[in-house]
Amino acid sequence: MSEAIATYLLHDTKGSHEKKAEGIALGLTIGTWTDLPELQREQLKKHKGRVLSVEALEELENVNSYFGASTYRSIVKIAYPAANFSADLPAILTTAFGKLSLDGEIKLLDLEFTGELRKSFPGPRYGIQGIRDILDVYDRPLVMSIFKGVIGRDISYLGEQLREQALGGVDLVKDDEILFDSDLTPFDERIQNGKKILSEVYEETGHRTLYAVNLTGKTFKLADKAKRAVEAGADALLFNVFSYGLDVLQSLREDQDIKIPLMAHPAFSGGLTASAFYGLSNALLLGKLVRYAGADYSLFPSPYGNVAIPKTDALGIACELTKQESEWKTAFPVPSAGIHPGMVPNLIADFGIDSIINAGGGVHGHPDGARGGGKAFRQAVDAVLAGEELTSRANDNAELRKALELWGGVPAGPK
Amino acid sequence: MSEAIATYLLHDTKGSHEKKAEGIALGLTIGTWTDLPELQREQLKKHKGRVLSVEALEELENVNSYFGASTYRSIVKIAYPAANFSADLPAILTTAFGKLSLDGEIKLLDLEFTGELRKSFPGPRYGIQGIRDILDVYDRPLVMSIFKGVIGRDISYLGEQLREQALGGVDLVKDDEILFDSDLTPFDERIQNGKKILSEVYEETGHRTLYAVNLTGKTFKLADKAKRAVEAGADALLFNVFSYGLDVLQSLREDQDIKIPLMAHPAFSGGLTASAFYGLSNALLLGKLVRYAGADYSLFPSPYGNVAIPKTDALGIACELTKQESEWKTAFPVPSAGIHPGMVPNLIADFGIDSIINAGGGVHGHPDGARGGGKAFRQAVDAVLAGEELTSRANDNAELRKALELWGGVPAGPK
Repeated sequence: MSEAIATYLLHDTKGSHEKKAEGIALGLTIGTWTDLPELQREQLKKHKGRVLSVEALEELENVNSYFGASTYRSIVKIAYPAANFSADLPAILTTAFGKLSLDGEIKLLDLEFTGELRKSFPGPRYGIQGIRDILDVYDRPLVMSIFKGVIGRDISYLGEQLREQALGGVDLVKDDEILFDSDLTPFDERIQNGKKILSEVYEETGHRTLYAVNLTGKTFKLADKAKRAVEAGADALLFNVFSYGLDVLQSLREDQDIKIPLMAHPAFSGGLTASAFYGLSNALLLGKLVRYAGADYSLFPSPYGNVAIPKTDALGIACELTKQESEWKTAFPVPSAGIHPGMVPNLIADFGIDSIINAGGGVHGHPDGARGGGKAFRQAVDAVLAGEELTSRANDNAELRKALELWGGVPAGPK
Repeated sequence: MSEAIATYLLHDTKGSHEKKAEGIALGLTIGTWTDLPELQREQLKKHKGRVLSVEALEELENVNSYFGASTYRSIVKIAYPAANFSADLPAILTTAFGKLSLDGEIKLLDLEFTGELRKSFPGPRYGIQGIRDILDVYDRPLVMSIFKGVIGRDISYLGEQLREQALGGVDLVKDDEILFDSDLTPFDERIQNGKKILSEVYEETGHRTLYAVNLTGKTFKLADKAKRAVEAGADALLFNVFSYGLDVLQSLREDQDIKIPLMAHPAFSGGLTASAFYGLSNALLLGKLVRYAGADYSLFPSPYGNVAIPKTDALGIACELTKQESEWKTAFPVPSAGIHPGMVPNLIADFGIDSIINAGGGVHGHPDGARGGGKAFRQAVDAVLAGEELTSRANDNAELRKALELWGGVPAGPK
């Protein structure tokens, strides 16, 4: 029997969590059990939710003082039969965390799927291996950079920024997630102009850079727009999945006419993940569900910068994106925000080779501009993979040296 | 100039909120200002975010002890020029609360729209007046009930429940939000069977009840499915908008072939609204945005039951749904969960005539079944509107008397 198994974190100042868990398992499925005649029990048995475990956690002093009372904490696992819902994420989320999301201090930490249900998720079309094949880069983390300060600028400004970034040797450049279609920077022109510039750079240098264009607009027009992007030769699509919905990402992935990589941006996700008491875990939302739905890359706040998440959360996301599963390809973890070349040793130590080093200010703020910034990152990556200290490699690499002088060689301590 | 004006609640253990607000206003628009040459300032001025106000709040002791440090609190208003984004909710949410949702303790309390931007939201197609016209009921709150314990049951079971509810005199019956399409209860059959039964009840009693069928499935198939529902004669669509996305609701509303009322369910919204520090306010999400996007009804947890929200939140939602705005029709507030007939005086006192009294257990758990439960609610409404005490009206109304005996006549004190 196929099931969705939800893991919840409960905080509660009263009552038994065993009883509460039973109430959830019944309330979100068949409603009642003890009052049912035997015949109906037989009929409804396969629809009944089951409490798998209730594990008490230690109380936390700051939580107790926040709620002003002794607060019981526990981890509860409940299985929901797949017979109860259609095999799509809106139905699964509504079942496992619909009404329940409104029912006091409860956070959805994980969802596991058994049996046939697993087949309803496509996973990444390309995944890590597929993206590496496109770029022909296999032995190092990829380096990505982001357009900066492009709001209100025109296509030629974007083009110049793109060229400088590509000349620095980055593997990917993504649109700013707050860049939408406007008369200054229409979608199709961004793709065409980007393609032209990146071809020129490839002709000049032999280095290939992919450009992820921001897919935006009305939900029901996204598929057609994505197809237009494919026809125009777009390399990849950036997508603000949480401002739309996870199933929109999945539906784009499932469309056989949209065969380009999909890059999930975490914009708006903090509203769902930041609380210790409510919402969803980062590992589930930005890791597992984004991968299952079909993203080839998932961006998330690094544990190092100003906009940061706890290191355990960032590693949890990366783990969900990269662990081997027979049904789904792995997806690239892209820890982002506050990244500069001096952090590369830490990034590789924490996220490994199969990750993307992504920077905005750490590329554009380089004394030699974006070109110098990209080079400094590539030099730092080469140094780490060769087992060299950055400071030692910096002797022969001016861009890396300038980056280390500006931002330091020792990464900010992770949160 | 058209703008989206965001109101945020900040919690922060360090730094100046004025400086933080300036950083947000620039960071989410043009990036920098002081470093720009005069000519570029002229060009970018109309794209620059503006801090409108920073208002310090008092510190809270339990918040300080939770974060383990003195925590500054403030309300910040920032205006984002509409020139920066396309006129759709995903773009607006990504701009005003995209990256920012990940940036520490920040909650989006409100969004206001000025100028042309207001025209990009359709609001309810029917609204309160339109729904009243359909039902020909003008002088009282409507009464709604919910299917109960229907998971694993078949069409004939649902049909019998629907008939009993309608015979109790409720104005609307909604699907359980966790009822999805299955072999037992296919979407089209639910509509056709529901229509047949409600016509029969109308023939028998002259009372009209509307049935809101749950619109579920894959996002990109919803519009076609909704049209099928319209063709099959569906009265209204229930929609788990937060498991999909606000723009999906809006796109259904904007489709000229889907001319039936839309009922927004709050499933999954708690993940975004429950925290005091993160996410969105209830008034914004379940009130304003749901109305602007086009729902005719918005369900939300009442302040009375087990699954409850603070009374100020519930009233805030109702206020956003019903306040007069020249551009948008008003939408019905539907405070839900934990409602029984004894609460009707409080419900009408709190939410007024232009609201819907909605009950599940308070209808089905009646000693005379759903039919008795519906009658008890209608009797309670009549009593309150006639200025009578429920207990006095109960002398001549057996259903109301039994309800008061079972659940009490005095509502649970609001949270």
